[in-house]
Amino acid sequence: MVAVAILAAGRGTRMKSDLPKVIHSLGGRSLVERVLHSLSEIQPSRRLVIVGYQGQQVQDALQSISGLEFVEQTQQLGTGHAVQQVLPYLQDFTGDLLVLNGDVPLLRPETLQQLLQTHQQHQNAATLLTAHLPNPKGYGRVICNGQNLVQQIVEDRDCTSAQRQNRRVNAGVYCFNWSQLAKVLPQLQTDNDQQEYYLTDAVKFLDPVMAVDVEDYQEILGINDRKQLASAYEILQERVKDAWMAAGVTLVDPASITIDDTVELQTDVIIEPQTHLRGKTLIGAGSRIGPGSLIEDSQIGENSKVLYSVVTDSVIGAGSRIGPYTHLRDHVEVGSACRIGNFVELKSTKIGDRTNIAHLSYLGNATLGDRVNIGAGTITANYDGVNKHPTNIGSGSKTGSNSVLVAPLTLGQDVTVAAGSVVTEDVPNDCLVIARARQVVKPGWRLNSTPEKK
Amino acid sequence: MVAVAILAAGRGTRMKSDLPKVIHSLGGRSLVERVLHSLSEIQPSRRLVIVGYQGQQVQDALQSISGLEFVEQTQQLGTGHAVQQVLPYLQDFTGDLLVLNGDVPLLRPETLQQLLQTHQQHQNAATLLTAHLPNPKGYGRVICNGQNLVQQIVEDRDCTSAQRQNRRVNAGVYCFNWSQLAKVLPQLQTDNDQQEYYLTDAVKFLDPVMAVDVEDYQEILGINDRKQLASAYEILQERVKDAWMAAGVTLVDPASITIDDTVELQTDVIIEPQTHLRGKTLIGAGSRIGPGSLIEDSQIGENSKVLYSVVTDSVIGAGSRIGPYTHLRDHVEVGSACRIGNFVELKSTKIGDRTNIAHLSYLGNATLGDRVNIGAGTITANYDGVNKHPTNIGSGSKTGSNSVLVAPLTLGQDVTVAAGSVVTEDVPNDCLVIARARQVVKPGWRLNSTPEKK
Amino acid sequence: MVAVAILAAGRGTRMKSDLPKVIHSLGGRSLVERVLHSLSEIQPSRRLVIVGYQGQQVQDALQSISGLEFVEQTQQLGTGHAVQQVLPYLQDFTGDLLVLNGDVPLLRPETLQQLLQTHQQHQNAATLLTAHLPNPKGYGRVICNGQNLVQQIVEDRDCTSAQRQNRRVNAGVYCFNWSQLAKVLPQLQTDNDQQEYYLTDAVKFLDPVMAVDVEDYQEILGINDRKQLASAYEILQERVKDAWMAAGVTLVDPASITIDDTVELQTDVIIEPQTHLRGKTLIGAGSRIGPGSLIEDSQIGENSKVLYSVVTDSVIGAGSRIGPYTHLRDHVEVGSACRIGNFVELKSTKIGDRTNIAHLSYLGNATLGDRVNIGAGTITANYDGVNKHPTNIGSGSKTGSNSVLVAPLTLGQDVTVAAGSVVTEDVPNDCLVIARARQVVKPGWRLNSTPEKK
Repeated sequence: MVAVAILAAGRGTRMKSDLPKVIHSLGGRSLVERVLHSLSEIQPSRRLVIVGYQGQQVQDALQSISGLEFVEQTQQLGTGHAVQQVLPYLQDFTGDLLVLNGDVPLLRPETLQQLLQTHQQHQNAATLLTAHLPNPKGYGRVICNGQNLVQQIVEDRDCTSAQRQNRRVNAGVYCFNWSQLAKVLPQLQTDNDQQEYYLTDAVKFLDPVMAVDVEDYQEILGINDRKQLASAYEILQERVKDAWMAAGVTLVDPASITIDDTVELQTDVIIEPQTHLRGKTLIGAGSRIGPGSLIEDSQIGENSKVLYSVVTDSVIGAGSRIGPYTHLRDHVEVGSACRIGNFVELKSTKIGDRTNIAHLSYLGNATLGDRVNIGAGTITANYDGVNKHPTNIGSGSKTGSNSVLVAPLTLGQDVTVAAGSVVTEDVPNDCLVIARARQVVKPGWRLNSTPEKK
Repeated sequence: MVAVAILAAGRGTRMKSDLPKVIHSLGGRSLVERVLHSLSEIQPSRRLVIVGYQGQQVQDALQSISGLEFVEQTQQLGTGHAVQQVLPYLQDFTGDLLVLNGDVPLLRPETLQQLLQTHQQHQNAATLLTAHLPNPKGYGRVICNGQNLVQQIVEDRDCTSAQRQNRRVNAGVYCFNWSQLAKVLPQLQTDNDQQEYYLTDAVKFLDPVMAVDVEDYQEILGINDRKQLASAYEILQERVKDAWMAAGVTLVDPASITIDDTVELQTDVIIEPQTHLRGKTLIGAGSRIGPGSLIEDSQIGENSKVLYSVVTDSVIGAGSRIGPYTHLRDHVEVGSACRIGNFVELKSTKIGDRTNIAHLSYLGNATLGDRVNIGAGTITANYDGVNKHPTNIGSGSKTGSNSVLVAPLTLGQDVTVAAGSVVTEDVPNDCLVIARARQVVKPGWRLNSTPEKK
Repeated sequence: MVAVAILAAGRGTRMKSDLPKVIHSLGGRSLVERVLHSLSEIQPSRRLVIVGYQGQQVQDALQSISGLEFVEQTQQLGTGHAVQQVLPYLQDFTGDLLVLNGDVPLLRPETLQQLLQTHQQHQNAATLLTAHLPNPKGYGRVICNGQNLVQQIVEDRDCTSAQRQNRRVNAGVYCFNWSQLAKVLPQLQTDNDQQEYYLTDAVKFLDPVMAVDVEDYQEILGINDRKQLASAYEILQERVKDAWMAAGVTLVDPASITIDDTVELQTDVIIEPQTHLRGKTLIGAGSRIGPGSLIEDSQIGENSKVLYSVVTDSVIGAGSRIGPYTHLRDHVEVGSACRIGNFVELKSTKIGDRTNIAHLSYLGNATLGDRVNIGAGTITANYDGVNKHPTNIGSGSKTGSNSVLVAPLTLGQDVTVAAGSVVTEDVPNDCLVIARARQVVKPGWRLNSTPEKK
């Protein structure tokens, strides 16, 4: 049995923010959400989040994750004090308590799994995560014997010059035998510089205490300010991008691209510079995305192309070409071999195969068949000021340039709408619909004589 | 009393440019402008700019800065020769002369202030700025005694191997007791490799000469070619971005963002990748800008969003959403809670609160009230080939898709313009205006029989 | 006489690709094309490409390059085996054989030229390229005497610890006296770990063998996976960008810009961030491109500006302003002093001088004279569902907002098209053409009563 306590009560003053630190976003998820995700290999039976500063806001930010217990720490009197708050919650609990920091978001699930396994294998009283930092300044040093048994944890400022050479530092991530910790927690004192209750003091009372090294020291980096937030994002991005490159994806200029760790990419996808893939996005094999595109929570089929476009909550079939300067949003579905072109916005619209909407169009709440050709400047008037109405266009139909389709409206199959027409009534199959004035030519006209005011 | 002489006469051959070097732009300001800005803590009583190569162009580039004196150096015979040119201008001047290079743009105002203070405190004959370079190759080394009194300045090529290990270099920034310098300036000789008059030779004649170290050696980097120009921009950007991150702004991918040092950002602003903030721009608290946006000389209110857009010389209220693919220019004012959407260009237009212009519109010289809804494809015909005319649209009005508003034109409040209408005459409150042909349907129409030519 | 054999038979398993490795693209050209381009200073009389895995695909990818001979290596049994395959092709050949790898794309032409010159000057049996790697791990070390005569090539795994300190590695690029190599090639054995025929074993049989150092070790980097592909692109980009900066081009944020090595830039061009210049592109002196633009196979005249736009296969005159959000494609020609503006797409269209197409227009297959003003929302209906038809607009003409020009159509000079008109018939010089309904105003109209359905 494993319980987890996540320290998430601090304000994070150096963030200079109105938000509590742990709910700042890092690559689409809050810091504390990332800490919760790092538990995926452990499956703890209890997850306690210790909240304090703007605790309600932290709870709200986590409301989509079920099964969390929120523990209030009204005053922030140190890490030991924070863990003391869980005592009433875990009175009958027997097992191990994993203690994590809500602002250390880069831990890999395998790292925590290994920490826990070592802890349980050796039946330690406590096991703590350590890392060898290139620059350990400011961190507490962990002094071990040859068997990784911890002999001392020394704060940076208390180090002898020999100890300061030791680069093995305390990551602040602990696994405790809960019943042993519960006994010593009440004994913590505040007789130190900061006058706080330190969790490392509890470690002193326990035996045996073992240290487990993390291979990649970047996992233990904490976020205290916006620059560290940016650095953590860079580390995370490097992980994600290296993994996709290893899996057979070409990133043309990796440093300029961002890919959320929730995205999936198939073989031989090519991502061009300045492209951002976010949320639950899937790019099919052989597709080329970018430059300059933002794809969010969308699926792109195989061998499609997206250039300088924004695609959100949408699905695009195989072999389609999107952009430049296209915006698809709110559940658009595009078939295969379509061409959605320049300055086109589609909203909540479904499109069959081999249909083209190539220029300067807005279609909302529309359903189009196959082989439809939407002329440049065609617009669905789907909004009457109160409600949105549907437009249906049958397969093989064609709208002329600058035509308006006033919804609710149904055009049958193989309908032709003449350029410049405003269509207000349904049109059966195989008809031409026209609604415009005849052309009048007035000779001898001088430019600049306000022609528009006829 | 302090006078400043800025050496700005060189051509900068390695820039390979038609422009004189010192007027090349670095983050929105020319190199020499940046040097002038570095004087902000000193407030000199005289500012002399020594010009030579294309001197008139340098003067023109600086014409917006008042109170400068331009000193001509017709031939470029070295730094000493350049400073000799100011002798006629400062005949009656008593005080200190600060000598700066027009191509060393990264000096901080505090650095110069400290140089001057040290100079005046110790009543030095000369005080020079030094830096400890990681790679001092090519720079003159400054040999000091323990009290920072300069004993020798040795050119790189004349260094003994011991001297070459000395990384303390001459930054080329000097503070002189003017009356002492004025006496020795005429004595300079050209008996050196380059046959030039060196200002360092003047230093030899003076006593005491003190060196002051700059903490950040990057401040003294000079710009000799385009690669150094790019490096200086990177250094400048890092300064600016680090400062904003420390102040509570999230930069999602800092390396891809540029922020002029004239920009102001409030708390919890989030800047997404590939966003550029230029000129006198202010972003309000909680707003999110980007990806892919360029904001120049504009103010964005609190909690607004701008996505893939260009905003110039404009003001946007709180809680408004701009983009993707919007262009605001030439003094646009957008109210609060507005939605300016896809493929919309606004020029010299003022918009009330809760007004939407969501798709494919161009509005120029227009004034809109509150709660106006501009339909997709609506265009103000504001230009008759000679003049621009105004369009006024009252609160609560609504234009249909693909309508044209021929200016000058006034629509009252709660006016409705039917889709596809060309409105040429003013419309009172609460009217429907319609200007379009009725729909005609011709059955049995075959696609591809040139329907547009009716 | 020089023949070249390029090893291009491998699959490149670590690319995790459906494509054979050597045809992956690096900056607009395949890896093997780049290797072929590195021969530009040598002009070999024979060029043999040894293909194997998906050999037909490699041949297809190279079909635009004439004079290649493709040699099949059905099984991939090592570098020696690969070169054995050319024996039947070079039976009567006397001269030198240069052996290159199809996945080593960064060699400079001068490097190969120098290798060959050294080889021929010293009448070596073999000459091989070496590099001093900062991290030589995994590479075979080349042990030479003082005259650069190779004494031993030791695989990394067989190195003594002293040999492992030697950072001079075998680049895998060889020049052989062909008649000597041809004699020893049949003697190769597979008595090694990999059970492959090694070309280095052939070297052992030859004498004298000399090594030539490459100055820039990055030239010898091979591409084995997508991460190395990305690194090679970065190296290539740095070369190209450094060269243009040295030549007098300002790159505002070089890391965010990509420039194909086929592009030409003139003096005082300024490239803004996130701009990509590809193919046969030429940017004229003093022009400013970007941010956020993609220019491909196009020429931009002097002192023009392009902002957030895509330009392909097009020519733009001097002093023109393009963008933001413009797409020019398929052989557009824009004159000088034009303004092609916001949300404008031009296709196969030719435009005279001082002509403006400022907002929300699509023109295809059109020819415009000088001083034409195309109103916002103007569209050429150039496609009838089967064919594309031309539109001609004479100098000085002006189209109103949201007008449609139904092609084939000719407007004379100084024609004015009223806003909202659909023009279907030709219009002579100096006429006003109008095709729209008169405005009707219905008072007492209530918003939200579905006005569009009149």
